[in-house]
Amino acid sequence: MAEGSMTSASPRELEERLRDTRARLEGDVDLWVATSGSPGGVHLIPLSYLWDGTAFIISTPRASVTGRNLLADSRVRLSLGPTRDVVVVEGTAEPVDIADLGPKAGDAFATRTGFDPRELDEPYQYFLIRPRRIQAWREANELQGRDLMRDGHWLG
Amino acid sequence: MAEGSMTSASPRELEERLRDTRARLEGDVDLWVATSGSPGGVHLIPLSYLWDGTAFIISTPRASVTGRNLLADSRVRLSLGPTRDVVVVEGTAEPVDIADLGPKAGDAFATRTGFDPRELDEPYQYFLIRPRRIQAWREANELQGRDLMRDGHWLG
Repeated sequence: MAEGSMTSASPRELEERLRDTRARLEGDVDLWVATSGSPGGVHLIPLSYLWDGTAFIISTPRASVTGRNLLADSRVRLSLGPTRDVVVVEGTAEPVDIADLGPKAGDAFATRTGFDPRELDEPYQYFLIRPRRIQAWREANELQGRDLMRDGHWLG
Repeated sequence: MAEGSMTSASPRELEERLRDTRARLEGDVDLWVATSGSPGGVHLIPLSYLWDGTAFIISTPRASVTGRNLLADSRVRLSLGPTRDVVVVEGTAEPVDIADLGPKAGDAFATRTGFDPRELDEPYQYFLIRPRRIQAWREANELQGRDLMRDGHWLG
Protein backbone atom coordinates (compact mmCIF):
# COMPACT_ATOMS: atom_id res chain seq x y z
CA MET A 1 0.00 0.00 0.00
CA ALA A 2 1.10 3.55 -0.53
CA GLU A 3 1.61 4.45 3.10
CA GLY A 4 2.43 8.11 2.80
CA SER A 5 2.88 10.40 5.70
CA MET A 6 0.46 12.92 4.23
CA THR A 7 -2.70 11.34 5.57
CA SER A 8 -4.63 14.56 5.92
CA ALA A 9 -8.32 13.83 5.33
CA SER A 10 -10.55 11.67 7.51
CA PRO A 11 -11.29 8.22 6.13
CA ARG A 12 -14.43 8.04 4.02
CA GLU A 13 -17.36 5.97 5.20
CA LEU A 14 -18.70 3.10 3.09
CA GLU A 15 -21.45 5.17 1.49
CA GLU A 16 -19.08 7.88 0.29
CA ARG A 17 -16.60 5.33 -1.08
CA LEU A 18 -19.37 3.56 -2.97
CA ARG A 19 -20.51 6.85 -4.49
CA ASP A 20 -16.97 7.89 -5.46
CA THR A 21 -16.18 4.45 -6.86
CA ARG A 22 -19.32 4.17 -8.99
CA ALA A 23 -18.67 7.69 -10.32
CA ARG A 24 -15.14 6.67 -11.25
CA LEU A 25 -16.22 3.44 -12.97
CA GLU A 26 -18.75 5.40 -15.03
CA GLY A 27 -16.62 8.45 -15.67
CA ASP A 28 -13.07 7.26 -16.29
CA VAL A 29 -11.84 6.21 -19.74
CA ASP A 30 -8.71 4.17 -18.97
CA LEU A 31 -7.65 1.56 -16.46
CA TRP A 32 -4.61 -0.58 -15.74
CA VAL A 33 -4.93 -4.26 -16.65
CA ALA A 34 -2.70 -6.82 -14.91
CA THR A 35 -2.67 -10.37 -16.28
CA SER A 36 -0.53 -13.47 -16.11
CA GLY A 37 -0.96 -16.94 -17.55
CA SER A 38 1.77 -16.85 -20.14
CA PRO A 39 5.29 -18.23 -19.79
CA GLY A 40 6.45 -14.61 -19.88
CA GLY A 41 5.01 -13.95 -16.45
CA VAL A 42 2.95 -11.00 -15.34
CA HIS A 43 1.87 -8.21 -17.69
CA LEU A 44 0.53 -4.71 -17.05
CA ILE A 45 -0.78 -2.16 -19.56
CA PRO A 46 -3.27 0.71 -19.69
CA LEU A 47 -6.39 0.15 -21.77
CA SER A 48 -9.54 2.11 -22.44
CA TYR A 49 -12.79 0.49 -21.29
CA LEU A 50 -16.55 0.72 -21.23
CA TRP A 51 -18.39 0.11 -17.94
CA ASP A 52 -21.85 -1.19 -18.71
CA GLY A 53 -23.11 -0.97 -15.13
CA THR A 54 -22.11 -4.47 -14.12
CA ALA A 55 -18.99 -5.34 -16.12
CA PHE A 56 -16.01 -3.82 -17.90
CA ILE A 57 -15.58 -4.26 -21.65
CA ILE A 58 -12.04 -4.02 -22.97
CA SER A 59 -10.53 -4.88 -26.34
CA THR A 60 -6.96 -5.73 -27.24
CA PRO A 61 -5.21 -7.41 -30.18
CA ARG A 62 -5.81 -11.13 -29.92
CA ALA A 63 -2.08 -11.72 -30.42
CA SER A 64 -1.01 -9.24 -27.73
CA VAL A 65 0.42 -10.43 -24.42
CA THR A 66 -2.71 -9.30 -22.57
CA GLY A 67 -4.96 -11.04 -25.10
CA ARG A 68 -3.03 -14.29 -24.89
CA ASN A 69 -2.80 -14.11 -21.11
CA LEU A 70 -6.54 -13.63 -20.65
CA LEU A 71 -7.33 -16.46 -23.06
CA ALA A 72 -5.02 -18.73 -21.02
CA ASP A 73 -6.00 -17.52 -17.51
CA SER A 74 -9.17 -15.51 -17.07
CA ARG A 75 -8.16 -14.03 -13.71
CA VAL A 76 -7.43 -10.33 -13.98
CA ARG A 77 -6.74 -7.41 -11.72
CA LEU A 78 -7.66 -3.86 -12.71
CA SER A 79 -6.89 -0.52 -11.16
CA LEU A 80 -8.36 2.91 -11.73
CA GLY A 81 -7.37 6.30 -10.40
CA PRO A 82 -4.11 7.72 -9.10
CA THR A 83 -2.07 5.82 -6.49
CA ARG A 84 -3.52 7.87 -3.60
CA ASP A 85 -7.14 7.48 -4.69
CA VAL A 86 -7.36 3.96 -6.03
CA VAL A 87 -10.03 1.55 -7.09
CA VAL A 88 -8.74 -2.02 -7.39
CA VAL A 89 -10.81 -4.74 -9.01
CA GLU A 90 -10.43 -8.50 -9.01
CA GLY A 91 -12.39 -10.11 -11.78
CA THR A 92 -12.66 -12.80 -14.42
CA ALA A 93 -12.46 -12.10 -18.13
CA GLU A 94 -14.70 -13.82 -20.64
CA PRO A 95 -13.78 -13.52 -24.34
CA VAL A 96 -16.60 -12.08 -26.44
CA ASP A 97 -16.67 -12.37 -30.23
CA ILE A 98 -17.42 -9.24 -32.20
CA ALA A 99 -20.53 -10.94 -33.62
CA ASP A 100 -21.80 -11.68 -30.09
CA LEU A 101 -21.10 -8.22 -28.72
CA GLY A 102 -24.03 -6.64 -30.54
CA PRO A 103 -23.99 -3.35 -32.46
CA LYS A 104 -25.20 -1.27 -29.51
CA ALA A 105 -22.39 -2.32 -27.17
CA GLY A 106 -19.93 -2.10 -30.06
CA ASP A 107 -20.97 1.46 -30.80
CA ALA A 108 -20.94 2.42 -27.12
CA PHE A 109 -17.45 1.00 -26.76
CA ALA A 110 -16.18 2.94 -29.80
CA THR A 111 -17.74 6.19 -28.59
CA ARG A 112 -16.37 5.77 -25.11
CA THR A 113 -12.83 4.71 -25.93
CA GLY A 114 -12.27 6.63 -29.16
CA PHE A 115 -11.31 3.56 -31.18
CA ASP A 116 -13.40 0.91 -32.89
CA PRO A 117 -11.81 -2.55 -33.07
CA ARG A 118 -14.50 -3.62 -35.56
CA GLU A 119 -12.94 -1.36 -38.16
CA LEU A 120 -9.34 -2.49 -37.70
CA ASP A 121 -7.53 -5.00 -39.89
CA GLU A 122 -5.64 -6.48 -36.93
CA PRO A 123 -7.78 -9.13 -35.17
CA TYR A 124 -8.99 -7.73 -31.86
CA GLN A 125 -10.55 -9.63 -28.99
CA TYR A 126 -13.18 -8.15 -26.71
CA PHE A 127 -13.32 -9.30 -23.11
CA LEU A 128 -16.15 -8.89 -20.65
CA ILE A 129 -14.65 -8.55 -17.18
CA ARG A 130 -17.03 -9.25 -14.33
CA PRO A 131 -15.80 -7.89 -10.99
CA ARG A 132 -15.70 -10.28 -8.05
CA ARG A 133 -14.10 -7.92 -5.57
CA ILE A 134 -13.78 -4.15 -5.59
CA GLN A 135 -11.71 -2.15 -3.14
CA ALA A 136 -11.17 1.59 -2.83
CA TRP A 137 -8.83 3.60 -0.63
CA ARG A 138 -6.87 6.82 -0.64
CA GLU A 139 -4.19 6.64 2.05
CA ALA A 140 -3.18 4.30 4.86
CA ASN A 141 -6.04 5.46 7.10
CA GLU A 142 -8.51 4.09 4.53
CA LEU A 143 -7.06 0.58 4.32
CA GLN A 144 -9.63 -0.53 6.86
CA GLY A 145 -13.03 -0.72 5.23
CA ARG A 146 -11.66 -0.80 1.69
CA ASP A 147 -13.86 -3.69 0.53
CA LEU A 148 -16.83 -2.39 -1.47
CA MET A 149 -17.71 -5.61 -3.31
CA ARG A 150 -17.19 -9.22 -2.24
CA ASP A 151 -18.05 -12.33 -4.25
CA GLY A 152 -19.60 -10.14 -6.92
CA HIS A 153 -21.96 -8.32 -4.56
CA TRP A 154 -21.77 -4.63 -3.63
CA LEU A 155 -21.69 -4.13 0.12
CA GLY A 156 -24.10 -1.20 -0.09
CA MET B 1 -2.85 0.51 -25.16
CA ALA B 2 -5.00 3.48 -24.33
CA GLU B 3 -5.83 4.44 -27.89
CA GLY B 4 -7.73 7.65 -27.30
CA SER B 5 -8.92 9.93 -30.06
CA MET B 6 -7.39 12.94 -28.36
CA THR B 7 -3.91 12.54 -29.76
CA SER B 8 -3.10 16.21 -29.84
CA ALA B 9 0.64 16.66 -29.30
CA SER B 10 3.42 15.48 -31.59
CA PRO B 11 5.21 12.35 -30.47
CA ARG B 12 8.26 13.00 -28.33
CA GLU B 13 11.68 12.05 -29.62
CA LEU B 14 13.88 9.58 -27.73
CA GLU B 15 15.85 12.27 -25.93
CA GLU B 16 12.76 14.00 -24.57
CA ARG B 17 11.23 10.71 -23.44
CA LEU B 18 14.45 9.76 -21.66
CA ARG B 19 14.52 13.11 -19.87
CA ASP B 20 10.83 12.90 -18.87
CA THR B 21 11.19 9.31 -17.75
CA ARG B 22 14.28 9.87 -15.62
CA ALA B 23 12.57 12.88 -14.03
CA ARG B 24 9.56 10.73 -13.21
CA LEU B 25 11.64 7.88 -11.73
CA GLU B 26 13.44 10.38 -9.51
CA GLY B 27 10.46 12.55 -8.67
CA ASP B 28 7.48 10.25 -8.18
CA VAL B 29 6.69 8.62 -4.84
CA ASP B 30 4.33 5.76 -5.79
CA LEU B 31 4.11 3.15 -8.51
CA TRP B 32 1.89 0.21 -9.41
CA VAL B 33 3.37 -3.23 -8.79
CA ALA B 34 2.04 -6.22 -10.74
CA THR B 35 3.13 -9.68 -9.64
CA SER B 36 2.08 -13.28 -10.08
CA GLY B 37 3.60 -16.52 -8.87
CA SER B 38 1.01 -17.53 -6.32
CA PRO B 39 -1.91 -19.90 -6.81
CA GLY B 40 -4.14 -16.83 -6.47
CA GLY B 41 -3.02 -15.50 -9.84
CA VAL B 42 -2.01 -11.98 -10.70
CA HIS B 43 -1.83 -9.18 -8.14
CA LEU B 44 -1.66 -5.39 -8.49
CA ILE B 45 -1.20 -2.77 -5.79
CA PRO B 46 0.26 0.71 -5.41
CA LEU B 47 3.43 1.01 -3.34
CA SER B 48 5.82 3.79 -2.49
CA TYR B 49 9.38 3.37 -3.71
CA LEU B 50 12.89 4.77 -3.68
CA TRP B 51 14.78 5.03 -7.00
CA ASP B 52 18.51 4.83 -6.29
CA GLY B 53 19.59 5.72 -9.81
CA THR B 54 19.71 2.15 -11.11
CA ALA B 55 17.05 0.19 -9.23
CA PHE B 56 13.76 0.57 -7.36
CA ILE B 57 13.54 -0.27 -3.67
CA ILE B 58 10.12 -1.26 -2.38
CA SER B 59 9.01 -2.80 0.90
CA THR B 60 5.90 -4.78 1.68
CA PRO B 61 4.81 -7.14 4.47
CA ARG B 62 6.54 -10.46 3.95
CA ALA B 63 3.18 -12.22 4.35
CA SER B 64 1.35 -10.00 1.83
CA VAL B 65 0.32 -11.33 -1.58
CA THR B 66 2.92 -9.14 -3.29
CA GLY B 67 5.63 -10.27 -0.87
CA ARG B 68 4.83 -13.94 -1.34
CA ASN B 69 4.49 -13.55 -5.11
CA LEU B 70 7.88 -11.89 -5.48
CA LEU B 71 9.56 -14.50 -3.28
CA ALA B 72 8.05 -17.22 -5.52
CA ASP B 73 8.57 -15.51 -8.92
CA SER B 74 10.93 -12.57 -9.18
CA ARG B 75 9.48 -11.24 -12.43
CA VAL B 76 7.63 -7.98 -11.87
CA ARG B 77 6.02 -5.26 -13.93
CA LEU B 78 5.80 -1.69 -12.65
CA SER B 79 3.99 1.35 -13.96
CA LEU B 80 4.31 5.02 -13.11
CA GLY B 81 2.28 8.00 -14.20
CA PRO B 82 -1.28 8.43 -15.42
CA THR B 83 -2.64 6.18 -18.19
CA ARG B 84 -1.94 8.80 -20.88
CA ASP B 85 1.63 9.49 -19.79
CA VAL B 86 2.95 6.12 -18.72
CA VAL B 87 6.27 4.61 -17.81
CA VAL B 88 6.16 0.80 -17.80
CA VAL B 89 9.01 -1.24 -16.36
CA GLU B 90 9.83 -4.93 -16.65
CA GLY B 91 12.23 -6.05 -13.99
CA THR B 92 13.35 -8.69 -11.57
CA ALA B 93 13.00 -8.40 -7.82
CA GLU B 94 15.69 -9.50 -5.41
CA PRO B 95 14.78 -9.80 -1.73
CA VAL B 96 17.04 -7.72 0.53
CA ASP B 97 17.23 -8.24 4.27
CA ILE B 98 16.99 -5.21 6.50
CA ALA B 99 20.49 -5.95 7.81
CA ASP B 100 21.89 -5.97 4.26
CA LEU B 101 20.12 -2.80 3.14
CA GLY B 102 22.42 -0.55 5.12
CA PRO B 103 21.38 2.41 7.30
CA LYS B 104 21.85 4.98 4.51
CA ALA B 105 19.47 3.29 2.07
CA GLY B 106 17.08 2.50 4.90
CA ASP B 107 16.99 6.15 5.94
CA ALA B 108 16.61 7.32 2.35
CA PHE B 109 13.72 4.92 1.85
CA ALA B 110 11.95 6.12 4.99
CA THR B 111 12.42 9.78 4.06
CA ARG B 112 11.19 9.21 0.53
CA THR B 113 8.17 7.04 1.24
CA GLY B 114 7.08 8.42 4.60
CA PHE B 115 7.16 5.08 6.36
CA ASP B 116 10.00 3.09 7.89
CA PRO B 117 9.59 -0.70 7.78
CA ARG B 118 12.52 -1.06 10.23
CA GLU B 119 10.35 0.40 12.98
CA LEU B 120 7.29 -1.76 12.39
CA ASP B 121 6.37 -4.88 14.36
CA GLU B 122 5.01 -6.64 11.28
CA PRO B 123 7.84 -8.34 9.35
CA TYR B 124 8.52 -6.39 6.17
CA GLN B 125 10.55 -7.49 3.18
CA TYR B 126 12.56 -5.08 1.06
CA PHE B 127 13.00 -5.87 -2.62
CA LEU B 128 15.53 -4.38 -5.02
CA ILE B 129 13.94 -4.28 -8.48
CA ARG B 130 16.39 -3.98 -11.34
CA PRO B 131 14.77 -2.81 -14.57
CA ARG B 132 15.39 -4.89 -17.69
CA ARG B 133 13.09 -2.95 -19.99
CA ILE B 134 11.59 0.51 -19.69
CA GLN B 135 8.98 1.95 -22.02
CA ALA B 136 7.27 5.34 -22.04
CA TRP B 137 4.40 6.67 -24.11
CA ARG B 138 1.52 9.09 -23.90
CA GLU B 139 -1.00 8.29 -26.62
CA ALA B 140 -1.26 5.97 -29.63
CA ASN B 141 1.08 8.13 -31.72
CA GLU B 142 3.87 7.42 -29.23
CA LEU B 143 3.61 3.64 -29.30
CA GLN B 144 6.36 3.59 -31.89
CA GLY B 145 9.68 4.34 -30.24
CA ARG B 146 8.46 3.58 -26.74
CA ASP B 147 11.46 1.44 -25.76
CA LEU B 148 13.89 3.44 -23.63
CA MET B 149 15.77 0.53 -22.03
CA ARG B 150 16.38 -2.96 -23.37
CA ASP B 151 18.20 -5.78 -21.59
CA GLY B 152 19.01 -3.43 -18.75
CA HIS B 153 20.67 -0.78 -20.93
CA TRP B 154 19.32 2.70 -21.58
CA LEU B 155 19.05 3.45 -25.29
CA GLY B 156 20.43 6.95 -24.84
